[in-house]
Amino acid sequence: MTDLRLDALRHALPGLRLLDAAADLEHYGRDATRRWTPAPLAIAQPANTGEVQGIARWANEHRIALVPSGGRTGLSGGAVAANGELVVSLERMRRVLAFDPVDRTLTVEAGIPLQAAQDAAREHGLQYPVDFASRGTATIGGGIATNAGGVRVLRYGNTREWIAGLKLVTGTGELLDLNRGLLKNSSGYDLRHLAIGAEGTLGIVVEATLRLADPPPPTGVMLLALPGFDAIMPLFAQLRRTLRLEAFEFLTDKALRHVLAHSGKDPFDSTHPYYVLTEFEVDEAAALSAFEHAVGQGWVEDGVIAASEAQAAELWRLREGISESLAPHTPYKNDVAVRVSAMPAFLAEADALLGREYPDFEVVWFGHIGDGNLHINVLKPAGMAQGAFAERCGGVTVHLAELLEKHGGSISAEHGIGLAKKPWLLGTRSAAEIELMRGIRRVFDPNRIMNPGKVFDP
Amino acid sequence: MTDLRLDALRHALPGLRLLDAAADLEHYGRDATRRWTPAPLAIAQPANTGEVQGIARWANEHRIALVPSGGRTGLSGGAVAANGELVVSLERMRRVLAFDPVDRTLTVEAGIPLQAAQDAAREHGLQYPVDFASRGTATIGGGIATNAGGVRVLRYGNTREWIAGLKLVTGTGELLDLNRGLLKNSSGYDLRHLAIGAEGTLGIVVEATLRLADPPPPTGVMLLALPGFDAIMPLFAQLRRTLRLEAFEFLTDKALRHVLAHSGKDPFDSTHPYYVLTEFEVDEAAALSAFEHAVGQGWVEDGVIAASEAQAAELWRLREGISESLAPHTPYKNDVAVRVSAMPAFLAEADALLGREYPDFEVVWFGHIGDGNLHINVLKPAGMAQGAFAERCGGVTVHLAELLEKHGGSISAEHGIGLAKKPWLLGTRSAAEIELMRGIRRVFDPNRIMNPGKVFDP
Ligand SMILES: Cc1cc2nc3c(=O)[nH]c(=O)nc-3n(C[C@H](O)[C@H](O)[C@H](O)COP(=O)(O)OP(=O)(O)OC[C@H]3O[C@@H](n4cnc5c(N)ncnc54)[C@H](O)[C@@H]3O)c2cc1C
Ligand SMILES: Cc1cc2nc3c(=O)[nH]c(=O)nc-3n(C[C@H](O)[C@H](O)[C@H](O)COP(=O)(O)OP(=O)(O)OC[C@H]3O[C@@H](n4cnc5c(N)ncnc54)[C@H](O)[C@@H]3O)c2cc1C
Repeated sequence: MTDLRLDALRHALPGLRLLDAAADLEHYGRDATRRWTPAPLAIAQPANTGEVQGIARWANEHRIALVPSGGRTGLSGGAVAANGELVVSLERMRRVLAFDPVDRTLTVEAGIPLQAAQDAAREHGLQYPVDFASRGTATIGGGIATNAGGVRVLRYGNTREWIAGLKLVTGTGELLDLNRGLLKNSSGYDLRHLAIGAEGTLGIVVEATLRLADPPPPTGVMLLALPGFDAIMPLFAQLRRTLRLEAFEFLTDKALRHVLAHSGKDPFDSTHPYYVLTEFEVDEAAALSAFEHAVGQGWVEDGVIAASEAQAAELWRLREGISESLAPHTPYKNDVAVRVSAMPAFLAEADALLGREYPDFEVVWFGHIGDGNLHINVLKPAGMAQGAFAERCGGVTVHLAELLEKHGGSISAEHGIGLAKKPWLLGTRSAAEIELMRGIRRVFDPNRIMNPGKVFDP
Repeated sequence: MTDLRLDALRHALPGLRLLDAAADLEHYGRDATRRWTPAPLAIAQPANTGEVQGIARWANEHRIALVPSGGRTGLSGGAVAANGELVVSLERMRRVLAFDPVDRTLTVEAGIPLQAAQDAAREHGLQYPVDFASRGTATIGGGIATNAGGVRVLRYGNTREWIAGLKLVTGTGELLDLNRGLLKNSSGYDLRHLAIGAEGTLGIVVEATLRLADPPPPTGVMLLALPGFDAIMPLFAQLRRTLRLEAFEFLTDKALRHVLAHSGKDPFDSTHPYYVLTEFEVDEAAALSAFEHAVGQGWVEDGVIAASEAQAAELWRLREGISESLAPHTPYKNDVAVRVSAMPAFLAEADALLGREYPDFEVVWFGHIGDGNLHINVLKPAGMAQGAFAERCGGVTVHLAELLEKHGGSISAEHGIGLAKKPWLLGTRSAAEIELMRGIRRVFDPNRIMNPGKVFDP
């Protein structure tokens, strides 16, 4: 490590842990996209907020870009360091700092994994209800930076709803203590909400105060087999009316086959084109009659209901295992959203578009359809080069983005813009909005050290 | 109307309604504070978004300040026009534009009164759950601009939680269509949340898409008489544990006497120092046993439970009538918040402070104590001049602000900073935060035409 700039950093922060072994550069320089070649300057692992501030000051002085880094489970390349940036990994900042039973809040360092935060909440008889499959590795800071959604948005909303306060180190090294856990605070602009979803371009989240909820009620889990696409939205409307839904997730048979190829067994005797996994507050009579009604309407062909927690977990694995089972195919991912009311029209057009544009590729759909959020995964054929594949899929995404614009949707429902969706931000956001974002970014980070090149070009 | 600048406006927007009669200038130049002398240039009443944009462009050209104006029920002077500003009253923009049963959203023009929006939701079998006493006059735009809270925050949160999208005309006359009703949209900075609570300093909200909730469950309403201050927080903790609370409001005997002097009858035979009004999902057995437990603990001396909707409304009037009953005394209002957990310590110190500092004034307390929000109203003695009174109270507020800073609280829970709390913003927000707000404001409104001088000095 003979880089003079790093020497200056070491001099400024003698205790700071810095890594630069080739394996570390690769490991910390990429995220779950695996599309860009990692090439960071080095990896810093600050142990506390003071060190994060020191890093930001040093970066300003030397004009070095910083990449805030959580669990690197991100699916948009937001945490990728491919241009000599210093990766600021929060891996060592993972403590639970406080629990308050009256406020029902848990204060944590931002590098804590989601699951560890959930566990800590549970130990106090409460829950942190944001939840998704990468929970073991994804961090609270990464969830805040992307306003992560997950499988319980239908009931509990996105990460944004659960952040009572956060501490942010801005691009000038200033530490902001935003909202401080208050339920009511009408005192000027809510900068907390500006930092949520900013993908590290306004600063590094070092601490968060999470609002906790009552523990989840006893729930039932059903997997329903659908004969066709058109059944999904009426089924959703009916279940939402008759049950108290915690989740309503959709997957195609292709998605299920990939999971089952990995492990697990098919709960049905025959295949069906589409499936819905739904979780709801236990009400057996209502669930049964909803099921019978749906069968009567022709929306559902078959169904299984979990008889135990183990069975419920097994059904969930069929949905949550999808991303992992597809990973070997380095899929190109679209993560799109429209209003739920716009879903049927959008789905029909998107289905036609993708069928037309990808005749030769395998396309796997699934998603949090109850929130208007669809994941489209295009699998890379084994022999194809990553660059050519991404280019081809990017070309199709141009048309998908047009469709989204037409239906008032978003090119990124919950994964963030990062590098992967940057070319299509315009369309979801207007030119005027993007210009305002640039301006805001200059205010927080005049020297553009915070994750430059992500979300929008400077 | 011979002002050349107004001639230019009339020329640019021939159809625009402009008022400048002395009575109009006075009526539209002030809000519920009644502390500043109104002196606007004129009043514009645009009929549509295009006219609002035209006004903003004209204001940029002529460097004229605009004051966005809703129902002027604001309690911080945010809508006051005392310096030759053009008041932009949204009074004519009050239509319901759309209802979507699938998304469960109601799209309205921002000048619609809160109550009219609530009624429209109810007609569709749903509710817009933000609610407070000025509902007949306060507008949706004003509620967004102040992130208004109200009496059901405990259950439903503040205005912010219910805004699925909004349209904003910025300080450059640009129209932004923010979030467009999406449930999930991780596509860069959430400018919608930045506009919420900005008190008109970033632009004029012209339209909003409100998220609606299921209709409220059948509820019970109790008024409980408390022997002392110390009983409030344990009572709250107990009721929150045993009932599903919709509201938990606190008032002092002084507050009750003011309401009763206006109208209504005392539900109790004797006076008690403090009262709590609470509404909860009907559960008679639980309510009775909670009441008995509270009496047994010595937290409650007496109580009444509403036996009909009319009685419930009558009890609510005792709480909601407070502001109106105090209005003739042109009270000086503090609207402060701390975390609920910090409430007991803060209350004790605030009580001591106010007792010491206001030996000669009548001080009336009430508030949404379940959210950590306390309203302190200091009544102006009949003979005292407004200026001297405000100065005296401002002096005490210096100390109150110090107390809030010590307890991690906010100088404005739900009324906004406006003019009234501007001197104490520092303390609730750091110097760095205020500097960032200034910077953001310059991005949205480089010529500072939007409500200049409110919230913070430029
Ligand atoms: C199997 C699998 C399932 C997934 N399911 C979901 C899902 O259902 N819903 C969903 O929303 N996402 C999902 N994701 C995506 C991902 O897990 C989430 O976006 C997660 O919140 C990212 O957290 P992270 O710590 O890994 O962030 P990273 O990937 O490390 O970073 C993501 C972004 O946040 C920034 N960042 C990270 N930490 C900080 C910080 N402390 N301060 C400022 N910026 C920071 C980074 O710079 C980057 O821009 C899934 C991913 C996988 C692999
Ligand atoms: C009796 C009474 C009880 C009250 N109770 C509560 C309560 O419980 N909770 C609570 O939060 N408040 C309460 N208030 C305060 C007030 O009613 C709220 O703040 C309300 O939301 C203000 O709405 P308005 O339309 O009257 O806004 P105005 O007073 O007209 O304006 C308030 C602020 O918003 C800005 N503004 C208004 N419209 C727009 C727009 N379209 N675009 C941009 N900026 C705009 C103004 O410039 C100003 O800064 C109460 C007031 C009274 C008189």
